[in-house]
Amino acid sequence: MSTPAALEAVRRHAPLVSCITNAVVTNITANVLLALGAAPAMVDITGEAGPFARVASTLLINLGTPQPEQRDAAREAVAAAADAGTPWVLDPVAIGTLTHRTALARELFGRGPSVVRGNASEILALAGDGSGGRGVETADDVAAALDPACDLARSHGCVVAVSGPVDLITDGESVIHVQGGSALLTRMTGGGCALGAVVAAFLGAGRKEGLDDVSAVVAAHAVYSAAAERAEVRSTGPGSFPPAFLDALYALEMQDLQNVSVSATSATTAAGGGPA
Amino acid sequence: MSTPAALEAVRRHAPLVSCITNAVVTNITANVLLALGAAPAMVDITGEAGPFARVASTLLINLGTPQPEQRDAAREAVAAAADAGTPWVLDPVAIGTLTHRTALARELFGRGPSVVRGNASEILALAGDGSGGRGVETADDVAAALDPACDLARSHGCVVAVSGPVDLITDGESVIHVQGGSALLTRMTGGGCALGAVVAAFLGAGRKEGLDDVSAVVAAHAVYSAAAERAEVRSTGPGSFPPAFLDALYALEMQDLQNVSVSATSATTAAGGGPA
Amino acid sequence: MSTPAALEAVRRHAPLVSCITNAVVTNITANVLLALGAAPAMVDITGEAGPFARVASTLLINLGTPQPEQRDAAREAVAAAADAGTPWVLDPVAIGTLTHRTALARELFGRGPSVVRGNASEILALAGDGSGGRGVETADDVAAALDPACDLARSHGCVVAVSGPVDLITDGESVIHVQGGSALLTRMTGGGCALGAVVAAFLGAGRKEGLDDVSAVVAAHAVYSAAAERAEVRSTGPGSFPPAFLDALYALEMQDLQNVSVSATSATTAAGGGPA
Repeated sequence: MSTPAALEAVRRHAPLVSCITNAVVTNITANVLLALGAAPAMVDITGEAGPFARVASTLLINLGTPQPEQRDAAREAVAAAADAGTPWVLDPVAIGTLTHRTALARELFGRGPSVVRGNASEILALAGDGSGGRGVETADDVAAALDPACDLARSHGCVVAVSGPVDLITDGESVIHVQGGSALLTRMTGGGCALGAVVAAFLGAGRKEGLDDVSAVVAAHAVYSAAAERAEVRSTGPGSFPPAFLDALYALEMQDLQNVSVSATSATTAAGGGPA
Repeated sequence: MSTPAALEAVRRHAPLVSCITNAVVTNITANVLLALGAAPAMVDITGEAGPFARVASTLLINLGTPQPEQRDAAREAVAAAADAGTPWVLDPVAIGTLTHRTALARELFGRGPSVVRGNASEILALAGDGSGGRGVETADDVAAALDPACDLARSHGCVVAVSGPVDLITDGESVIHVQGGSALLTRMTGGGCALGAVVAAFLGAGRKEGLDDVSAVVAAHAVYSAAAERAEVRSTGPGSFPPAFLDALYALEMQDLQNVSVSATSATTAAGGGPA
Repeated sequence: MSTPAALEAVRRHAPLVSCITNAVVTNITANVLLALGAAPAMVDITGEAGPFARVASTLLINLGTPQPEQRDAAREAVAAAADAGTPWVLDPVAIGTLTHRTALARELFGRGPSVVRGNASEILALAGDGSGGRGVETADDVAAALDPACDLARSHGCVVAVSGPVDLITDGESVIHVQGGSALLTRMTGGGCALGAVVAAFLGAGRKEGLDDVSAVVAAHAVYSAAAERAEVRSTGPGSFPPAFLDALYALEMQDLQNVSVSATSATTAAGGGPA
């Protein structure tokens, strides 16, 4: 299934995305999902997070501001998702030196997420390499995360996505690079976090159509990049960019997706070089 | 008092609206109230929520992300509001199958809100009918909520407002339909939740002027619809809509209110048909 | 160091600003810092807030929605900041009659913030005068806070900044007034709270360059005012203002800073009159 078809699937199914995410980005995350055509719901308390993860199409666990109640809710949701077969995405925000989120990320990673999405420093920290970034900022290049990402994907049977100027997506066998996007995404809070939610939405809709997870994750990144490019030309800075980005996600047409460069190679070949 | 006069009252009194609301929409809720001319304050911890509900003009209780501390704060605020005579609005977000919020909504509903505002699924769930919507989305039509809304209003002596393409407001005797608005409100997080806060603001200002609660709630919906219509023509999607909506609330003039269709009938007549 | 040089320092150093702030403004606060060129991180749970305050360039403590966990995290962060020499800003939002935040503000103020920033009612309440404002709105004039602000600054060895139509900044000896800005900042949630974060960013970058704290705080206010003026002419209301404000912070050039009126006098002279 192509990226345009995956986008159509999201719009048609309007997957219900259960989000346990951080306090800084809840609003933009929900708005990104609504603009895309998905149905967000932030259900992040114990007693509700589990049951809701069962009925949702897909689940996002983002560790950006992991309050104690939310940490327990995340555990409950992940257990329910595993039991019900709900695909889920782990976004290990700013792990490395911060203790609670780092420990929780490792614990949840062991419970079998469908996808892990983060920046290079976060993926390196999850692999036990590096010491993390500067808060939510990465201190490492995407290329440096290639081998750890492939190892994590193989050892855990999941898809790992590393965001950066060129995004890297791998299941441990094939490696796909997605180019494009906009530097303004790094000047907008939630530029990375909302991408995690979009990945979850594509995963949920993709599963309903029999789409493999790698293709769903690639489609999510390609759509995100295409919308960011469209928004950048319509905005004059990081303040006008988010409204333009939401408008772009909403209005994205199939031809907008043609400019996104997606290149695939094998993990072994990729280890010898980056994208063309 | 007409809707224009009610809007003038809000702008003149700048009612202090104490909001206990969900994490996703706090920011847009506060901005909607500020644009309208009201004074929002989010005081949602125990020990402060009660005393603040006493001095506020009006109180909003929204159950969208009911953390344990917030649930206790809501109970404290409602008790203080009842004691001090502060009018208050209950917004039973996404109740139905989610246990904590559903139980709390029923408990608080028994303590005498001035107004309950929700979508059709939420009102049906509060009445014990239906099984709730899909997260915050309704799964039912406004018309299906007419009889339960009238019953709830009569049995509890409050105003019930059901939001949808055509809003329905009733005190159990008369039924008022407000048409207009914009479908983009459903693509903006907080489109419904912020309306609950606007209802609270009109309620607070209306009480100071001796306006009956039904008229205040109708005016809130009419102003919201008029601003949404004005914003829709000035925006290019769900991202540019919220800024345009806030600008419209701020700049709304009396003639903008003329296009909103408000039609009243009796509960018994309405049971036989919808709005013209 | 001049205000333009201080802005250059912020952009060059990209200070890591650890923010413990309220739920209503986390998003706009982070976006303001990103637009300015700083690196925000909201680390507000115990076990993480302390260690992070050690490595951050600067720390903001804003008491707008002080959940129990956040209150403990604030104490932990302040203790760590004191130990590590991290400069920090206290923003005592809406203190006066609300008990938890008022007690916590007094406690934290005793632990030696580098800067206290608030509106006139908040500064008066911190000094033990006045009874606080209406929620986050001030009920007092900036001029009324002059003497208490100077007293607080002298007795605690910190800088006190009072926001209003004309901002007042003092270390107890000199008094600086910063004019300009936009009334739309009072119609945008976080207009004051995000200023506290900007003060923290300038403080962090300023320290790296050997800039005295008063000059850093003045520069923060001058930059904020200049960006607000630039944004006001590019916006049509309180909804289009925040995006324009973020764009302005991002694009602010040195000549934009020339129009901000900054006037200095001594505390004793200022007590006899206001700014010219």
